Amino acid sequence: MTTQNEMHPQRWGNPDHATALPDSARGLIELAFGIDERPPVDDALPPQSQLAGSALVALSSAVGSDYVLVDDQTRTLRTRGKSTPDLVKARAGDLSDAPDVVVRPADQSEIEAVIAVAVEHRLAVVPFGGGTSVVGGLVADRARLSGVISLDLVRMKRLLALDPESMTATLEPGLRGPEAEALLAEHGFTLGHYPQSFEYASIGGFAATRSSGQSSAGYGRFDALVVGLTAVTPSGPVTLGSAPANAAGPDLRQVFLGSEGTLGVISSVTVRIRRLPAVKQYVGWRWPSFEAGADAMRTLAQSGLLPTVIRLSDEAETAINLADPNAVGEGSSGCLMITGFEGEAAAVSAKRTAVSEVLAGLGGTDLGEDPGQAWANGRFHGPYLRDSLLDLGVFVETVETATFWSQRDHLYTSVKTALETALGSGAIVLCHISHVYETGCSLYFTMAAKEGDDPLAQLAQAKGAASDAMIAAGATITHHHAIGIDHKPWFAREIGPVGVQMLQSLKASLDPTGVLNPGVLIP
Amino acid sequence: MTTQNEMHPQRWGNPDHATALPDSARGLIELAFGIDERPPVDDALPPQSQLAGSALVALSSAVGSDYVLVDDQTRTLRTRGKSTPDLVKARAGDLSDAPDVVVRPADQSEIEAVIAVAVEHRLAVVPFGGGTSVVGGLVADRARLSGVISLDLVRMKRLLALDPESMTATLEPGLRGPEAEALLAEHGFTLGHYPQSFEYASIGGFAATRSSGQSSAGYGRFDALVVGLTAVTPSGPVTLGSAPANAAGPDLRQVFLGSEGTLGVISSVTVRIRRLPAVKQYVGWRWPSFEAGADAMRTLAQSGLLPTVIRLSDEAETAINLADPNAVGEGSSGCLMITGFEGEAAAVSAKRTAVSEVLAGLGGTDLGEDPGQAWANGRFHGPYLRDSLLDLGVFVETVETATFWSQRDHLYTSVKTALETALGSGAIVLCHISHVYETGCSLYFTMAAKEGDDPLAQLAQAKGAASDAMIAAGATITHHHAIGIDHKPWFAREIGPVGVQMLQSLKASLDPTGVLNPGVLIP
Repeated sequence: MTTQNEMHPQRWGNPDHATALPDSARGLIELAFGIDERPPVDDALPPQSQLAGSALVALSSAVGSDYVLVDDQTRTLRTRGKSTPDLVKARAGDLSDAPDVVVRPADQSEIEAVIAVAVEHRLAVVPFGGGTSVVGGLVADRARLSGVISLDLVRMKRLLALDPESMTATLEPGLRGPEAEALLAEHGFTLGHYPQSFEYASIGGFAATRSSGQSSAGYGRFDALVVGLTAVTPSGPVTLGSAPANAAGPDLRQVFLGSEGTLGVISSVTVRIRRLPAVKQYVGWRWPSFEAGADAMRTLAQSGLLPTVIRLSDEAETAINLADPNAVGEGSSGCLMITGFEGEAAAVSAKRTAVSEVLAGLGGTDLGEDPGQAWANGRFHGPYLRDSLLDLGVFVETVETATFWSQRDHLYTSVKTALETALGSGAIVLCHISHVYETGCSLYFTMAAKEGDDPLAQLAQAKGAASDAMIAAGATITHHHAIGIDHKPWFAREIGPVGVQMLQSLKASLDPTGVLNPGVLIP
Repeated sequence: MTTQNEMHPQRWGNPDHATALPDSARGLIELAFGIDERPPVDDALPPQSQLAGSALVALSSAVGSDYVLVDDQTRTLRTRGKSTPDLVKARAGDLSDAPDVVVRPADQSEIEAVIAVAVEHRLAVVPFGGGTSVVGGLVADRARLSGVISLDLVRMKRLLALDPESMTATLEPGLRGPEAEALLAEHGFTLGHYPQSFEYASIGGFAATRSSGQSSAGYGRFDALVVGLTAVTPSGPVTLGSAPANAAGPDLRQVFLGSEGTLGVISSVTVRIRRLPAVKQYVGWRWPSFEAGADAMRTLAQSGLLPTVIRLSDEAETAINLADPNAVGEGSSGCLMITGFEGEAAAVSAKRTAVSEVLAGLGGTDLGEDPGQAWANGRFHGPYLRDSLLDLGVFVETVETATFWSQRDHLYTSVKTALETALGSGAIVLCHISHVYETGCSLYFTMAAKEGDDPLAQLAQAKGAASDAMIAAGATITHHHAIGIDHKPWFAREIGPVGVQMLQSLKASLDPTGVLNPGVLIP
């Protein structure tokens, strides 16, 4: 049986890799929220598989019986994603959304065969890459279907083609971030796509959710990296991407990017790659205010002077960072910015000098590389902290959005106020900007609050209030987390009835029996 | 009555602005092809308007009777676009594709009203911006309809919003290139979009065809400039673009971009703008071969060192350029490259120095600014030359494509051979690269041949052979000219049956009566 470095079913990643909460942090948490230890239920089982024998036989004939799994453990490991509500449910022993069967195709033709079986037997197909969804993207609506297949892409981890002259690589969807980087590094290349979920999230998931990494300013969003893709739909496979760009009608690649498994299963993507950087430098800057730092980001973006990484914490997030004994900064206030530079030594040096000149001219204080390196060292650790806090009865959740620069301050205030109001006194709301464009930026909010009797209701109320504020401000419901099931009502408001109609018509045409990730994305 | 600087119905632009063919050039043409003067028919009339009186009344009530025009001259001026076959037909007095009525809405609500009338009376709606299509994008298929409306956007020329902080502007679709630039220049901004059709083409057309300008390396393709748009469909209007980028499902903006009036009429676009450049410098370089110059372009693109403009002529195009007494270059062979730098003085100087260092290191010869300035002075004049040659019995036509770098040479050879074979001995085939990306580039071919008895058949055969070669090479049928009716068969091969099905499903949903630009784009 093919396995991989599985995530814990009730926690992020591999808990052995988590840093234990330092005593000082535990003290702070006790002070802020009080400690209310909530150990997870550890003997839960998923509901019995509802799969008909005939379907099991057909699936076995599609991929081989070794790759059709109905055991409790495998199905448990393919239940939901890693949003805070997902973790709250998993910790409570709720495995009601477990798939009936986990199927592991070896290649595109086996995906086609599985989809054909799903259509014939009316089974939902939920593509599973890294299982890192934080928006309910892995919870199929089984209402009109006879069961749920988790289409586990764990066996599809090949580098199918490498074109060093064009600087492109064709990758299979099951490759996780580090696996894709390792394959490319053998040839001296990198994808440069490092979302916080990097260690577990997959290439197919990056494409299906329009992922954006922490180095997006330098390497580009994942959708900007994709020059071609193949998707398997119930109507057949389609390969798109005959040129870097063209004028041949609507860009249909952009319809599968962000489609979250509802229009087709992405069986390969061809992505732009870059030479492995010789040098990586991360530098901290201090700003007197969030506003001043954000204005500096805007100046850089509009001057064509963006570093590889650029992020800015608001006053509250900066203060929390500084409370962490691992972070650097002495008696400082204001806002912490991280800038990162990757590439050839000369180019890095030139860019860092130019950026530093602009930032110093705008009132920033250079803090040197220590805070930058501290950020780089901890860049994938955030989700582990959430589990430690859940153990103590404190939930942490994130919501994120994006807007144009002139609306940034209004959006920030609106969402922050909505969260603070919804969560009540004692809650903590932090914000950072981590993705910038010439015309605007993202805003990423972290909230923490003491769990009450119904933490799912608390979370739903807070996320709902924040989401309402985003749409009221004319902003997007998600900059890089995608829609899943959690964001659907606000997504419908964002794209309007004609936008919804467009997606419904594509869905009805490509997937007339509605087997692909039913209930996700499409209102 | 609203009018504007109309193009001549049988020639490009305003013939008074054309430079007369110098005697030396006429001599060269006589030598190459022989002179066979073919004066155009000058008293042709369009067929009688077939519009029913009830439709006329309804349209008048939608936009006011002053803006519903059925006179022969207005209809003649809205007949077809400016491809060479279009000009050959117009010169022969063939006005069979004239619309029945020209309707000029004042704003989005009047577009909605006109579309409602069109649906009720089963009239085709052909959006008309600049009338510069070279792919048959303005020739509606009236087979299942009772008439054709040319939806002339000449009254929709407002700058609807300007956001200097976000660096965006919202423009109406009827603005021609120079008009949009003039409105933005009042505020110190530029769009920087300069296709060869710039003087006549419109904002709506740029968006509907995924236009790409001569400065695309610096300012980006038009589809990359668009951050938001509103389109009016028979199912209602839709506004998209809540953020510079996001993860909220498929990017539906990219469905209307390139939709060529078949899914909706674009009633406004919000575009990224830049500060007006303080300095513009254009510099020529000589390369020993097309291959060497193309490799240098690739190096620049993959080093993040692209100038604002970069283009490279092959040996044949370079030789023809040098035969033009207005072009600069003494006794030279090889291939001419033009690089252009626009921006603040210091940034221009730094970029030019860095680019020059790379190009010199790769074997290029700096020719200074004279050839660059000569190119800049003539950058919009090419289409006028085509008319002068048609007067002499020589047709000139262009086809263009794009591919990844590793396929460039194969594509170049395939298409060039296909054109030379189809056109026979005595024909001239030239090529240049004018748009480059990290992963690939465009190839733009110009062909010239003596007109025989059936020039339309000659053109169709040559374009067909070139198009077959593009698709066989896995390249795109068009990098920046769009699909129209001329490219449809190859477009269907490029996107495959599932791609075609996606477009057909969107069309059936948004435009169930099929009134929007019928016959165009969608196979």
